[in-house]
Amino acid sequence: MAKTKGPRRPKAQTPKGFRDYFGSDVTARKAMLDKIAEVYHRYGFDALETSAVETVEALGKFLPDVDRPNEGVFAWQEDDDWLALRYDLTAPLARVAAQYRQDLPTPYRRYAMGPVWRNEKPGPGRFRQFYQCDADTVGAASVAADAEICAMLADALEAVGIARGDYVIRVNNRKVLDGIMEAVGLLRVGEPEYKAKERGIAIRALDKWDRLGEHGVEKLLSTGRKDESGDFTEGAGLDHLQALWVTTLLMQRLNSVEATLDVFREKLAESAIGLEGVDELQQIASLLDAQGYGPDRIIIDPSVVRGLGYYTGPVFEAELTFEILDEKGRPRQFGSVAGGGRYDDLVKRFTGQTVPATGVSIGVDRLLAALDAKGKGPSRAQGPVVVTVMDRARMADYMALVNELRQAGIRAEMYLGNPKNFGNQLKYADKRESPVAIIMGEDEAQKGVVQVKDLILGAQIAADASVEEWKAQSQQVEVARADMVATVREILARYA
Amino acid sequence: MAKTKGPRRPKAQTPKGFRDYFGSDVTARKAMLDKIAEVYHRYGFDALETSAVETVEALGKFLPDVDRPNEGVFAWQEDDDWLALRYDLTAPLARVAAQYRQDLPTPYRRYAMGPVWRNEKPGPGRFRQFYQCDADTVGAASVAADAEICAMLADALEAVGIARGDYVIRVNNRKVLDGIMEAVGLLRVGEPEYKAKERGIAIRALDKWDRLGEHGVEKLLSTGRKDESGDFTEGAGLDHLQALWVTTLLMQRLNSVEATLDVFREKLAESAIGLEGVDELQQIASLLDAQGYGPDRIIIDPSVVRGLGYYTGPVFEAELTFEILDEKGRPRQFGSVAGGGRYDDLVKRFTGQTVPATGVSIGVDRLLAALDAKGKGPSRAQGPVVVTVMDRARMADYMALVNELRQAGIRAEMYLGNPKNFGNQLKYADKRESPVAIIMGEDEAQKGVVQVKDLILGAQIAADASVEEWKAQSQQVEVARADMVATVREILARYA
Repeated sequence: MAKTKGPRRPKAQTPKGFRDYFGSDVTARKAMLDKIAEVYHRYGFDALETSAVETVEALGKFLPDVDRPNEGVFAWQEDDDWLALRYDLTAPLARVAAQYRQDLPTPYRRYAMGPVWRNEKPGPGRFRQFYQCDADTVGAASVAADAEICAMLADALEAVGIARGDYVIRVNNRKVLDGIMEAVGLLRVGEPEYKAKERGIAIRALDKWDRLGEHGVEKLLSTGRKDESGDFTEGAGLDHLQALWVTTLLMQRLNSVEATLDVFREKLAESAIGLEGVDELQQIASLLDAQGYGPDRIIIDPSVVRGLGYYTGPVFEAELTFEILDEKGRPRQFGSVAGGGRYDDLVKRFTGQTVPATGVSIGVDRLLAALDAKGKGPSRAQGPVVVTVMDRARMADYMALVNELRQAGIRAEMYLGNPKNFGNQLKYADKRESPVAIIMGEDEAQKGVVQVKDLILGAQIAADASVEEWKAQSQQVEVARADMVATVREILARYA
Repeated sequence: MAKTKGPRRPKAQTPKGFRDYFGSDVTARKAMLDKIAEVYHRYGFDALETSAVETVEALGKFLPDVDRPNEGVFAWQEDDDWLALRYDLTAPLARVAAQYRQDLPTPYRRYAMGPVWRNEKPGPGRFRQFYQCDADTVGAASVAADAEICAMLADALEAVGIARGDYVIRVNNRKVLDGIMEAVGLLRVGEPEYKAKERGIAIRALDKWDRLGEHGVEKLLSTGRKDESGDFTEGAGLDHLQALWVTTLLMQRLNSVEATLDVFREKLAESAIGLEGVDELQQIASLLDAQGYGPDRIIIDPSVVRGLGYYTGPVFEAELTFEILDEKGRPRQFGSVAGGGRYDDLVKRFTGQTVPATGVSIGVDRLLAALDAKGKGPSRAQGPVVVTVMDRARMADYMALVNELRQAGIRAEMYLGNPKNFGNQLKYADKRESPVAIIMGEDEAQKGVVQVKDLILGAQIAADASVEEWKAQSQQVEVARADMVATVREILARYA
């Protein structure tokens, strides 16, 4: 029989798939986003912060690549309205561009940084709330806008600490892909439904080139492919030669943009849309070149796909080229941290008019992980100096000490727990990763001195007790009260 | 009969009660919060960013001062869980303090800044999503923690640009109020239900002293009060002399903290809890005094109430003392921008154990409005330099110009709209509040020069065309391309 209990206590638990961020998790991300925002601002982009909540109607009922209405979104009914948490920063931008179209400058350059919410099954490293960091230009049809976004992305990556040479931004154009589809009979311009399914299979296959390899892509372009688990994926129905023509074209790497694009001009000579795409790539390359963004930073790469539907012109992808070790200890390239492209139909939902737009989204968590992997994360803030409490009657003195440190710009705390057990105070300092503890008991107070204890040196000595010379080093010095700030500064400088 | 239409287009509309923030609205708030965070960090407080979504169970079903379950909260059901958007930053802190109690340092000092959501009737200036900015110390019973919060609040206000003398932080203790209630028979220690209703009436009356005036408060403490509209509010039932005793006690202003507290010690001699409160106020005053936070910044003021229930010890309130004009043009004090106090029961919901806690919340929008009123808002970012497009064939040159400006740290844009109509380009520059436009047509390109147009001077001339001398000033200069950056810098420095 159940025991009689008082009212059940609530569980102290983050909801499933959500997480909390503590201390340097918050400040490291903030520092990175601040640096990106500075670049975006310099490029003339204005900050925009929309509400986290949108009407389901304005948000659109579909996440990209999701078929069921409302799938993937947190939504609820409020009086007569259905409201939902935004699932990205692009849908709210489309709403804003329509709602304020009379007031916003044209073109409208904006950046946005903030959390978005996805009602998806959580998994390792997959959370239902995460940050996005977007920059978009709405109302500019010129590929100069796309080129600008690519240059800005390069500057942003360098601003956060990714060295030139450690990243590359690949640029392609969906129209080139359309040209290829047209050339092999998977697309008829003006008939969007024609072979749409086969085209989808082909584009998805090209998008997964890295994972499938050349042979796997060819299979999927033609008769279909059986994967390791034995599952069969239907092919796009090209004959073997057509499939080979596609992969060969996309694999060719010539040593100049001009040479590459010349090959595409020749191969896509029959496709008006394909040639248009090649011309746009040429223009982007020239515009970037004029600004000094050469192939060491931004390259034209006709093999880039970037997902389905959505994009209508140039697409771009930033990849980090340095190696990290994967979970099995094998080296692999870090990979993609940002991507984007031109999408011309988002605002149309609201106004009926096509508004050209192009933009980029940086994967905030991916880029933070990259900075960590490079040991270039924003410097983790040092722990605070801890002023210990030896004598309850001297609380005012300890607060004066801590205030002196703070006014000198030094991060500092007075121990505010129960001061009875001095060992607990040092344990607390340890948990806070304090570099220095200040100690002032009755004796010190009488003499007008304080003890300044170097906790980092102390920890080193404790960790490596056999090194006798270290023991000779004094980890604790007695200094005049007036010299406390200077002494602490000296120690902090040692470990900066 | 209704006309046959295509599918209805969605409304491009922010949900009712929500708003979007553009450009300097975002950056001004961010700049202010950054300065506050810097102070909090220096005081040893760690950043915490909890998820926006909580389980309804963890959040608690009650907003402070709200009776109905779930009232005031955006909540929805997700599989078996009820989830909700956080309505403040304190409830998530209580959850975190319970959930991670083994890992967090004790005491745990944390600050949090971010949006919260209230499902309330929107009104002018009242939105359903707004920012909060909190700092709390969990696990410290000592009033030294309260004193620290007060000092930190003073430093934070000064850091954002509120001058010393333009603010005052008033400190009281709920125990002193309890003592007063006990003295007039509205409280029996250990019997929380005893005269709870009357006590509530009395405390609410004292909280509204500013609005009700001495006489109104006396009425509410005794027989009740009829307001201007004729509505009658029940009184707390004290006799006239008791009511007078309370208001007289709270109105007395002596010229030192000691003298004030001596009066309270004498008047509350029969109330143990009252005397405890007076002693705590004495301690806080001493601790603050030792750090140099005197009555020019922080004063002991036994008339401060700060709402109902919730607080269990010291309470504090930051008030801006400078005058602004109200909506009818009459001068009035700006008033409260922050408040807080000690609350010892929040974590108990989860763990069954009382955990002492104290904290402060800054009214983000109020403080931003105050900075605006003082003309001390974070400097609104200047608009970008606009490089105009005179010749479509020279896009690459224009991008090179804009890149040169950006690399020199100058905010700059190339005009990305349709360049046909040059007047539109200048209108765009105007909308962007651009200080400078760069013009390079065929002639200039041949000569290796650019035109640098001072748009601010241009606007001044346009606004005041009669001043002949100004017309003589050149608002447009032709400079060598190599001198463009220097010339732009010079103009920007003029208006910095």
